[in-house]
Amino acid sequence: MPTVNDSQAFWWQRPDLGYVNDELHLAGHSLAALARAAGGPAFFYNAERLRAKLGALRDALASTGLRNRVFYAMKANRFAPLLGFIRTTGLAGIDACSPQEVQFALGCGFDEEDISFTATSVSNADLDILARHPGVLINCDSLSTIRRLGERCPGRDIGLRINPGMGLGYGDNDKLKYAGAKTTKFGIYREHFAEALATAREHGLKVRRIHFHVGIGYLTGQLPEWEKILEVCAGFVDDTPDVQSVNLGGGLGLPHVATDKPLDLKAWSAVIKRRFGPRKVEVCVEPGDWIVKDSGVLVLQVNTVERKRDTDFIGVDGGFNLAVEPTAYGLPCEPVPCVRRPGNTQAVTIAGNINEALDIWARDVPLSPLREDDYIAFLNAGGYASAMSSNHCMRGQFQERLLYPRD
Amino acid sequence: MPTVNDSQAFWWQRPDLGYVNDELHLAGHSLAALARAAGGPAFFYNAERLRAKLGALRDALASTGLRNRVFYAMKANRFAPLLGFIRTTGLAGIDACSPQEVQFALGCGFDEEDISFTATSVSNADLDILARHPGVLINCDSLSTIRRLGERCPGRDIGLRINPGMGLGYGDNDKLKYAGAKTTKFGIYREHFAEALATAREHGLKVRRIHFHVGIGYLTGQLPEWEKILEVCAGFVDDTPDVQSVNLGGGLGLPHVATDKPLDLKAWSAVIKRRFGPRKVEVCVEPGDWIVKDSGVLVLQVNTVERKRDTDFIGVDGGFNLAVEPTAYGLPCEPVPCVRRPGNTQAVTIAGNINEALDIWARDVPLSPLREDDYIAFLNAGGYASAMSSNHCMRGQFQERLLYPRD
Repeated sequence: MPTVNDSQAFWWQRPDLGYVNDELHLAGHSLAALARAAGGPAFFYNAERLRAKLGALRDALASTGLRNRVFYAMKANRFAPLLGFIRTTGLAGIDACSPQEVQFALGCGFDEEDISFTATSVSNADLDILARHPGVLINCDSLSTIRRLGERCPGRDIGLRINPGMGLGYGDNDKLKYAGAKTTKFGIYREHFAEALATAREHGLKVRRIHFHVGIGYLTGQLPEWEKILEVCAGFVDDTPDVQSVNLGGGLGLPHVATDKPLDLKAWSAVIKRRFGPRKVEVCVEPGDWIVKDSGVLVLQVNTVERKRDTDFIGVDGGFNLAVEPTAYGLPCEPVPCVRRPGNTQAVTIAGNINEALDIWARDVPLSPLREDDYIAFLNAGGYASAMSSNHCMRGQFQERLLYPRD
Repeated sequence: MPTVNDSQAFWWQRPDLGYVNDELHLAGHSLAALARAAGGPAFFYNAERLRAKLGALRDALASTGLRNRVFYAMKANRFAPLLGFIRTTGLAGIDACSPQEVQFALGCGFDEEDISFTATSVSNADLDILARHPGVLINCDSLSTIRRLGERCPGRDIGLRINPGMGLGYGDNDKLKYAGAKTTKFGIYREHFAEALATAREHGLKVRRIHFHVGIGYLTGQLPEWEKILEVCAGFVDDTPDVQSVNLGGGLGLPHVATDKPLDLKAWSAVIKRRFGPRKVEVCVEPGDWIVKDSGVLVLQVNTVERKRDTDFIGVDGGFNLAVEPTAYGLPCEPVPCVRRPGNTQAVTIAGNINEALDIWARDVPLSPLREDDYIAFLNAGGYASAMSSNHCMRGQFQERLLYPRD
């Protein structure tokens, strides 16, 4: 595998991602060469990075001395070869949020017992499917679900998704908070918790797990806040007589811009050890983005280089419908030319091919010179991109490819 | 067809949409009955309303005394039976914004000459497809496209999408503006127009059309602003020697809330007559939303009725991924119970089934009482809903049905 050894360091540069002789490489592959072969919008994922992230997470959890499990939140990316690869690592099960995801995960080789299910506004049709899969670990997030599941599956072990009334998210972005001062749709609040346990008992359901998920994208600086939330959640665990396991949800964040630092896993697991070590429960986590996001890039081809008034536009052959986070959630987007041409960087605005004003990938970003037919890699496209893509304007075609290291 | 004759008038009520004996009807069909038969999330569209809207638009255009055409912007809704129905009316061609839309429209029975193509960041692969369809009316929105199209199709008639540097949109929403003070990716600005005409000439392309589109959702109160824009655009028409036709784009708005009034088509066409009547050009328009949006509803089933803290949540079996406008564009959403139960209205928050905090259809809306298993119709779901839907969380399944009037 060609080693990245670049005199100009970029904040996002890693041994598996960077320029080699002015060509951007991922997992030893030239992204321009891969994109040329694909012949259209394409996502590329580094399989080994997925394995490394999962391994690091398991190591961190092991340091707590507690039994532990990782469930990969497949809503972040359900590309079947990627799910299949995660299955072969044996390092994680699946977090599913719809019966269709459960069925898809089974198709990729996961067993029912490896699938944790946590959903909201669960219908009877959903529960009828889940009833046919008795091994799936169901967490109920409302009294209504407990009651309707109990009618279908008396005696089943369940988990309760609780809502601690506190939340956090990347850059304090409210769109990414799942709990907080304002009442949200998720989970069971403290004032309804006794009734939830009673409802479970009435229907012969045993509450084995406490689950919570309070937002996505938290980084090291937010760990003190996260620890406060864990302490509140631990109170629910203590009040659940048959509890065996606590699921801390996902939400582990990634750097999006140069000033972000990666989440400190040692500090993170130390929080878990402090709050749950004495309680001897199994600890589960279910990250999605943290596992896949920075393993993947979306590569688009430049078709138009043109100055309009005061702005240098770079038109590319894919739009926001392929990766909605920059436009819909306001998350930063990092475009990187796949071939670095000599010359000064120039501030350009990268425009997609959707007939909508908001279809702009990045505004006034300084990049090395670009020409028509060049390729641009958009970093951090491994999560919530292909999985949320639409066929808007019938511009929804793309390819995906799981990359193994190249010698 | 049962006539809507309701003592309690709702702002959105129409002869084809309203309660009949406390059941919400569209085109004479009970929406609860249709939804029960569908057994999952479903869109219903009133075919006759599509025809009526197209007819009203043609009548308004006819009053200008100018030759005129309507191109339906299929990006708003590409449900094949709906496109096929529009084809049978003979009242409109198609506005396509990708080669895939062109191919799909041909599949639905439209001829090349009935298809207007206006896109942005057009690739060579796109142009190679268009070159195989010489009858399609192509409007170029950049010098790069003119040049690359000219290399492929010398001698072809083309249009130029121009950018007047002014824009407008529903509720002054910047996300919906396509042109304005800030430089946008769309069209050719005045300062590059002479070069655009010269580039076309160099490649033997004849510029027959001037096209512009300045935003979506304008209503009657914004017509004076729209007229100013038309006056600027007319200057481009005057400076185009071989021009035959001017395309005013789409953007005609619809009422979204009780205080919105429908666009006054007489006032609208009077503007067109004032600005283009003396110029004797053919006038084209290409609305999408205005044609389809209020003809369609999305019906979801209530699966959860539950108070959490201070909020009465109504959980339904579909999420924002089926209709992204309320969450992604901040457009209002009007939920209406399909069966009106007796009792006082109650402020409820309607939550979808996607594991995201933003997946809320409406907050604290006063509705007649709802129970689990009831149905709710979301109005104005005929445009930019199914067409932009994703399979996020694998909750993307839905049905669509074109309704003909029922006796």
